[in-house]
Amino acid sequence: MILTNARVATMATGYGLISHGAIMVQEGRIVWVGAEADLPDASGPRHDMGGRLITPALIDCHSHVVFAGSRAAEFEMRLNGASYADVARAGGGIMATVTATRVASEDDLLAQALARVDQMLAQGVATLEIKSGYGLDVDTELRILRVARRIGHLRAVTVRTTFLGAHAVPPGLTADTYIDQQVLPALHAAHAEGLVDAVDGFCETIAFSPAQIERVFTAARALGLPVKLHAEQLSNLHGAALAARHSALSADHLEYLDEAGAAAMAEAGSVAVILPGAFYTLRETQLPPIDLLRSHGVPMAVATDCNPGTAPMTSLPLAMNMACTLFRLTPLEALQGTTLHAARALGLADRGHHYPRPARRSGGVGRRASRRTFLSHRRHPAVCPHGRRPS
Amino acid sequence: MILTNARVATMATGYGLISHGAIMVQEGRIVWVGAEADLPDASGPRHDMGGRLITPALIDCHSHVVFAGSRAAEFEMRLNGASYADVARAGGGIMATVTATRVASEDDLLAQALARVDQMLAQGVATLEIKSGYGLDVDTELRILRVARRIGHLRAVTVRTTFLGAHAVPPGLTADTYIDQQVLPALHAAHAEGLVDAVDGFCETIAFSPAQIERVFTAARALGLPVKLHAEQLSNLHGAALAARHSALSADHLEYLDEAGAAAMAEAGSVAVILPGAFYTLRETQLPPIDLLRSHGVPMAVATDCNPGTAPMTSLPLAMNMACTLFRLTPLEALQGTTLHAARALGLADRGHHYPRPARRSGGVGRRASRRTFLSHRRHPAVCPHGRRPS
Ligand SMILES: [Zn+2]
Ligand SMILES: [Zn+2]
Repeated sequence: MILTNARVATMATGYGLISHGAIMVQEGRIVWVGAEADLPDASGPRHDMGGRLITPALIDCHSHVVFAGSRAAEFEMRLNGASYADVARAGGGIMATVTATRVASEDDLLAQALARVDQMLAQGVATLEIKSGYGLDVDTELRILRVARRIGHLRAVTVRTTFLGAHAVPPGLTADTYIDQQVLPALHAAHAEGLVDAVDGFCETIAFSPAQIERVFTAARALGLPVKLHAEQLSNLHGAALAARHSALSADHLEYLDEAGAAAMAEAGSVAVILPGAFYTLRETQLPPIDLLRSHGVPMAVATDCNPGTAPMTSLPLAMNMACTLFRLTPLEALQGTTLHAARALGLADRGHHYPRPARRSGGVGRRASRRTFLSHRRHPAVCPHGRRPS
Repeated sequence: MILTNARVATMATGYGLISHGAIMVQEGRIVWVGAEADLPDASGPRHDMGGRLITPALIDCHSHVVFAGSRAAEFEMRLNGASYADVARAGGGIMATVTATRVASEDDLLAQALARVDQMLAQGVATLEIKSGYGLDVDTELRILRVARRIGHLRAVTVRTTFLGAHAVPPGLTADTYIDQQVLPALHAAHAEGLVDAVDGFCETIAFSPAQIERVFTAARALGLPVKLHAEQLSNLHGAALAARHSALSADHLEYLDEAGAAAMAEAGSVAVILPGAFYTLRETQLPPIDLLRSHGVPMAVATDCNPGTAPMTSLPLAMNMACTLFRLTPLEALQGTTLHAARALGLADRGHHYPRPARRSGGVGRRASRRTFLSHRRHPAVCPHGRRPS
């Protein structure tokens, strides 16, 4: 199959636009991209794209999409004047999601997650990171990760799993006891089952200290697993620098990142994952230091952070619009942040931009994504807050 | 057809929820709504709704959805550091849309608008207001309104047209000359062609003064047409009070509304149309005085304001989420604002809530909407910024 008359954004340098481009697909894989005038001789059906823009399929590199229940009632309570304490007394907050997730069967969790995943895919996502972290015990953390893997088999999406046992401290345990009794055993069990592509934590005064995160990272790296970190979202605990010392794939959120943290990330090659959905939902006012990230050359990714509390959103194009509107990313940065740099944040080299040669198959990772590695747009993808992929 | 096992939001008092509700539909019209236990004897197929929430279909009571071209390049210029003056020199701003709209054929305008309208309908809208205002000359204003009417015939949506000749002053004319030479002749011609359901204006220092708006309103009322007004968006020119003196259906935006304006609206029965999309896109900081509107009992509607410059969005659920998140409306207010109160803002009494008796047919207005007067949700509709109707 040959796609002709397309504007192709290869993301090679900037947009890497080919004005009169063509794409050749063989056996479900893109084998050639270039100017239509240079198209090699080939047979097969041709599709005129009518001048549409084709970009790499989108990559959502930070999501918590597997959970049970809804926090809509809590949202309504808050808007009717309830305090966070009122909500907590009514059983709200993250523990409401943990409670619902613990009692949900694997099939029920899968069904609930698929409804959200299908919305994500409909908006152009072909690679999706999924974190655990709503179990906070060994069994449930494993169940969440199994559901994440099943999603990758059931849908035309590459799923990258992230173990986030260190997401919150469950009531009745100290953070250190919780790490000893649940997080580390769950990590080892999940890894043994092949369920873990990376390890994450939430480094914040309301969650885990840098020393506690360090314990989890040390265990992860002993297993050969890459790490990433929720860092500097609500305060500056120097989590980004900690993550950088562990060669983290990414540090995420980063509203309170300082210059030393940005320099450490640049040095380590860690990606800054920008999450405007939580900023919007929480009505935060501390903007992430975008200029600092630019000046240090830290690559920026943009993700939904899809979760039931602070970012109940499934639209990656909406997250891109919020990154532009609220954080002043350029549309190019927003698109790089969901293609080129999002791939890097997941440790993937085979997607998110066009290769001069056909991408090598890399351990199965590229297989499913290849079905729809590119995405067709009628209009510019990065300026559309419409809530649907432009079509 | 009978829908059973539904949670039905009648919007009669608050949500007006019927927990175990049923809806009877005959010949495409809802003829009975109530508790399933009270369902009259009737034959016909039954559909189990599985406990889903059913609300009145949504009403978007403020849109500029018919226009040509795109302002994406301008969005990108601004984010790359260009000033408004730079953008204007490059041919950007509202006149870019006017220029593109003037040269577009009626069929081209229709095709471009339908792409956006289909996104709106996919998110639950069944009644849509459409304004002119990107022609700024007699011919193009008429063409926009004809396209709006055609949309109502081509899709399962009730379209209410609004003449907005007084949207901006085209270069080379004074506002008063423009009103004399284009706005009033266009209004009379459009009215003669049956293209006008209401008349709107933009009362602002950068657009039309209250005295100029008054001239347009006087002409509208002489034709028996109801009025509405873009008022107090960027400053306080007391446009809402002016609109109220003309018994306006609504005053819209209202970030700078004062207490006298709110009192005048309450007295006149005008609806306050809240437009968070423009507030979000322009990164405004002046919040509309929601508490003032509440204390004066002014009904609030919520709309997309869909337009290419300040609110390039087609998702009414996203506008509802923004009204809650940014303006602190409750989810109930957001849903009333897109059903009950949005109907009132359009002068429609036959939709947006459940009638105890089947609604009378009112001049054809109800015909198309009846096909899908109600909307089924799996989750709460007002808390979903997902960018798609919850499903
Ligand atoms: Zn997160
Ligand atoms: Zn408007």
